[in-house]
Amino acid sequence: MKTRAAVAFEAGRPLEIVEVDLEGPKAGEVLVEIKATGICHTDEFTRSGADPEGAFPAILGHEGAGVVVECGPGVTGLKPGDHVIPLYTPECRECEYCLNPKTNLCQSIRSTQGQGVMPDGTSRFSYKGEKILHYMGCSTFSNYTVLPEIALAKVRPDAPFDKICYIGCGVTTGIGAVMFTAKAEPNCTAVVFGLGGIGLNVIQGLKLIGARQIVGVDMNPAKEAMARQFGMTDFVNPKDVKGDLVGHLVELTGGGADYTFECIGNVNVMRTALECSHKGWGTSIVIGVAPAGAEISTRPFQLVTGRNWRGSAFGGARGRTDVPKIVDMYMEGRIDIDSLITHKLKLEDINKGFDLMHAGESIRSVVEY
Amino acid sequence: MKTRAAVAFEAGRPLEIVEVDLEGPKAGEVLVEIKATGICHTDEFTRSGADPEGAFPAILGHEGAGVVVECGPGVTGLKPGDHVIPLYTPECRECEYCLNPKTNLCQSIRSTQGQGVMPDGTSRFSYKGEKILHYMGCSTFSNYTVLPEIALAKVRPDAPFDKICYIGCGVTTGIGAVMFTAKAEPNCTAVVFGLGGIGLNVIQGLKLIGARQIVGVDMNPAKEAMARQFGMTDFVNPKDVKGDLVGHLVELTGGGADYTFECIGNVNVMRTALECSHKGWGTSIVIGVAPAGAEISTRPFQLVTGRNWRGSAFGGARGRTDVPKIVDMYMEGRIDIDSLITHKLKLEDINKGFDLMHAGESIRSVVEY
Repeated sequence: MKTRAAVAFEAGRPLEIVEVDLEGPKAGEVLVEIKATGICHTDEFTRSGADPEGAFPAILGHEGAGVVVECGPGVTGLKPGDHVIPLYTPECRECEYCLNPKTNLCQSIRSTQGQGVMPDGTSRFSYKGEKILHYMGCSTFSNYTVLPEIALAKVRPDAPFDKICYIGCGVTTGIGAVMFTAKAEPNCTAVVFGLGGIGLNVIQGLKLIGARQIVGVDMNPAKEAMARQFGMTDFVNPKDVKGDLVGHLVELTGGGADYTFECIGNVNVMRTALECSHKGWGTSIVIGVAPAGAEISTRPFQLVTGRNWRGSAFGGARGRTDVPKIVDMYMEGRIDIDSLITHKLKLEDINKGFDLMHAGESIRSVVEY
Repeated sequence: MKTRAAVAFEAGRPLEIVEVDLEGPKAGEVLVEIKATGICHTDEFTRSGADPEGAFPAILGHEGAGVVVECGPGVTGLKPGDHVIPLYTPECRECEYCLNPKTNLCQSIRSTQGQGVMPDGTSRFSYKGEKILHYMGCSTFSNYTVLPEIALAKVRPDAPFDKICYIGCGVTTGIGAVMFTAKAEPNCTAVVFGLGGIGLNVIQGLKLIGARQIVGVDMNPAKEAMARQFGMTDFVNPKDVKGDLVGHLVELTGGGADYTFECIGNVNVMRTALECSHKGWGTSIVIGVAPAGAEISTRPFQLVTGRNWRGSAFGGARGRTDVPKIVDMYMEGRIDIDSLITHKLKLEDINKGFDLMHAGESIRSVVEY
């Protein structure tokens, strides 16, 4: 079949809207009509050429929502008409990782996904006879796409696509880091570095689980109002702090925060986040993606005196199990997504979404097909 | 009263055996006759002058066992004749730290202990009228010493002092890191870096909790035999590994170890330990004390893909609660201490103990009074 898609033909170039060829689903695969997709920093990381593992030509996009059109042989858990959210972290429920309760990093299709192909080693996309790669196993910048069944979360049919697509990455990454990675407790204290989309979702996760103090840190004072709306109790602009930021945050949190979250991807901020967590029991969680080759450092004394340094990918969520629950949380009014979706675009205007991201004007831009 | 003690008058000089003056216990304090004391690397770290927080003159030693002689006013949990192990990490059971199940780092007397004085801000030791400082709140290189009640673990009276003194630091640090900090599970895999006293105790802790694979790593092939005796299943000498040590250890453990322990104090080894822990759920625990100013580094990707970096002090043990249990484990024959105590010395020969340590000839030297 033919489908419209925004194709990244080369690193650093704008996406081009063309009609590509899409093969139907093979065994264990599902054809999905994407109804809406968010535009995420990770897409831009690859589009720009900054991602050392980026491969082209490819159809980017990994934060979508849509409807099952057709199921390949052997698909048992989905049927045409089901509403789904694509999962760049799948959940096979059979691999060593899925069977270990400490991780969500299903490895069953890791290597082919990393190469931009389906589990059988081939791509379903082509353009003028030339192969086009999949991206993060999702390729939601195509109106129709093919995914393995294990990479689709079935969600309730009454949830709006243009909102729940954001659960496919940013919402789950932020809320999940609180609920699944940190397993933060009621009455805890927290510091959140970076008040973009991820940081705001971390904040609403902290509010949801009953955190006592939620400190937000950002260089941009314009971020304060929205963060307070999401549950932030204290705002710190590092530019306004005289002296040591770590010392300031330790004092503000009464000895350091129980949990700190780095939502920027800056290795210096990751160090600050660790060091302002509480002696004895503080846990600092790296969410942001650092530039290739960048390294984090600290004195080991920070760990020996009880701080715990860890990271979170896709919020520690097991997609098929947890994503439908987060959709429920949204539909029950327990989390806010609407305020975070600041721009709606047509596929033709997808490059504007990247411009808005760079200008810092959007929290999340969503493309509706 | 008078007591014999090995005094560190100046950094870098051998200890001097002299008769010092010791004041009796004040409120909440206990006079203890030390019967035996181990000589630990931490004592040498301070004696040598490498410890930037070292203060002199002081009576070092923190790994002892002895008998209560006299109790000051208000002491309710101990009486003369009780057998005790001094605790450089006390357990007041009242401070914010003691009341948080995630840490063992009681802070109730932290600042005065760090200054080498009792909680009231004064020292009980003097020599020719000049104040001599306490050390780590213990000063077990004195035949008699005074400690706060909260810094004494009461232990069974039939346990031999010359063995259980080692539980005051090395044994608990190693076994505790497995049981209390890592909370390692049966059938786990582990890599232990450094097969000195701490490493051997980590290994016997791993054997005790039912680890499936226990890899020991050391540059000295002479360490292999004893480590195997303690439960090591695989020995790796980095000098014999062609290529990347991390890759070798990941392969040997089938994808990385569930738990890794750094028992050396080398920041490069700490990085290796983190990076050879298992993707998704590996926990790496820093036990060794690094040189002042040294820093650990890694790519944050190591954390984002599920590795967890933490540290352990005094094995995560709460001294008054856990040390008596470890004494029981020894008396029940479930852990081996005897093989680790390679040298017995008289107080007059205490400097020989440091020489043996430097020569790598001892695992633990113990001074008996």
